[in-house]
Amino acid sequence: MTRPKLLITHPFDEAVALDALVASVDEHGRASARQFEGRPHPAYANMVGPFGGVTAAQALAAVLAHPERLGEPVALTVNFAAALADAPFRVEARPARTNRSTQHWTVTMTQTGADGVDAVMLTASAVTALRRDTWNAVDAPMPAVAAATDVPRAPFTDRVSWVGRYDMRPVAGAIPQHWDGTEADSLTQLWLRDDPPRPLDFLSLTALADAFFPRIWRRRARMTPIGTVSMTVYFHASAAELAATGEGYLLGQARAQSFFNGYFDQSAELWNEAGHLLATTHQIVYYKE
Amino acid sequence: MTRPKLLITHPFDEAVALDALVASVDEHGRASARQFEGRPHPAYANMVGPFGGVTAAQALAAVLAHPERLGEPVALTVNFAAALADAPFRVEARPARTNRSTQHWTVTMTQTGADGVDAVMLTASAVTALRRDTWNAVDAPMPAVAAATDVPRAPFTDRVSWVGRYDMRPVAGAIPQHWDGTEADSLTQLWLRDDPPRPLDFLSLTALADAFFPRIWRRRARMTPIGTVSMTVYFHASAAELAATGEGYLLGQARAQSFFNGYFDQSAELWNEAGHLLATTHQIVYYKE
Repeated sequence: MTRPKLLITHPFDEAVALDALVASVDEHGRASARQFEGRPHPAYANMVGPFGGVTAAQALAAVLAHPERLGEPVALTVNFAAALADAPFRVEARPARTNRSTQHWTVTMTQTGADGVDAVMLTASAVTALRRDTWNAVDAPMPAVAAATDVPRAPFTDRVSWVGRYDMRPVAGAIPQHWDGTEADSLTQLWLRDDPPRPLDFLSLTALADAFFPRIWRRRARMTPIGTVSMTVYFHASAAELAATGEGYLLGQARAQSFFNGYFDQSAELWNEAGHLLATTHQIVYYKE
Repeated sequence: MTRPKLLITHPFDEAVALDALVASVDEHGRASARQFEGRPHPAYANMVGPFGGVTAAQALAAVLAHPERLGEPVALTVNFAAALADAPFRVEARPARTNRSTQHWTVTMTQTGADGVDAVMLTASAVTALRRDTWNAVDAPMPAVAAATDVPRAPFTDRVSWVGRYDMRPVAGAIPQHWDGTEADSLTQLWLRDDPPRPLDFLSLTALADAFFPRIWRRRARMTPIGTVSMTVYFHASAAELAATGEGYLLGQARAQSFFNGYFDQSAELWNEAGHLLATTHQIVYYKE
């Protein structure tokens, strides 16, 4: 893998970079919250506001940057309360409880509105933990599909920037070619990785967990307006497994289970090429009509 | 269905009852938090602390009791930071952001320790929404299994109280009869409902989402110590569908996908007897060894 020498910083690293603001203590003097400033990155712009996967990664980045952090991420839930404006935001990470081997985090992302008032744009929770070696097993083996390099890359025809930041190679259930309302199942399988390639870490894995196109588009072949409301990622790997994955492809598989009165769910898995299930992820998504 | 006349209050209703404490405003004067007092109920006691499903329901109850609540629950994530002591707790629900048709909630449950200091026992987030009638579909149809009334109830041999509060009728993947370390798949299917029967609502559905025995017990046939760390419930029904379910059985299906260095996941579905997928739910669970 050769990378152009002039590319000093990967756009994803630029996107998740946070500046530390003042340290603070919560209203009960209980624990030390830390505030950071970040901003949406033009390379990851979406139709309205930034790509939610990067926003989720920015929320997790505040936890990872906190000096009192214990261990590595096990769970992350991000609630998208409003589309971020194209302006700086503040993100606060607070250890709500620290146990011997686990730590519970709350995260809040705010932006100052035109009226000068701070508004909550995102809330999140995370669990970090010191892992120990245990008996392990995978009950969701990677589906047998063609190797990533044998699958052609999907042409980048999307109008939004962030899609171009991922090399996506659909194996099954690609985005509809004809928006003719033909109903199908909601399953998609694809190989994917950052473009340009970038060694995998918890932040990029978080963003990749949100990289599937909306299940309702696959299900209905109709361009329905959607917006993810809440997303959860469970990490089934330590930094060592992510480092071993390197710049390799991940196989992603996503499907919906219910579309009901304005909200559908998505469950997805992400394996590396060696077949390690790195993350399982779930979200609930608003849809119109 | 006849119910003894003397049973005035269902134990579940007793368990999720909260007393309103003072109203308060958050540190930014942004929105009105409400505090309630609740307590673990002996009928739902677990090995250590109360049954987490009821604790999750108590967290949601604080949201539902808030006078500014908009709409019905769409998503709930509960992070179990520590096992509750057998003593009263305070639960605070705060609308972090209210949009036109959605509302984002943060919930914190605290208990005062022996040292007189308040400690966070649980954090949660919820999304409530005004739903509209839309195109609907179920991509996870209910498995074809024998009717609930044709399946014998599992004998109540458990040492913990809460298991007796549920009528469970395993269809596949019952709890191991022999703890002999024989590995199996992690799938369980069972009919279940409250005992005594109780009309379904969002609170009891939340508790039912946590009623599956630990996947690792099924997977390994070993009595491994476990504890749920974080649990998410997506609701695919409105109050009308829950009311139509009434005191009927739900078919629950649960499986794990990964067991990795101390944490395994569980994904589960809950259908009513009419085949409506009422909820999908996910959790990540600590396990020892």
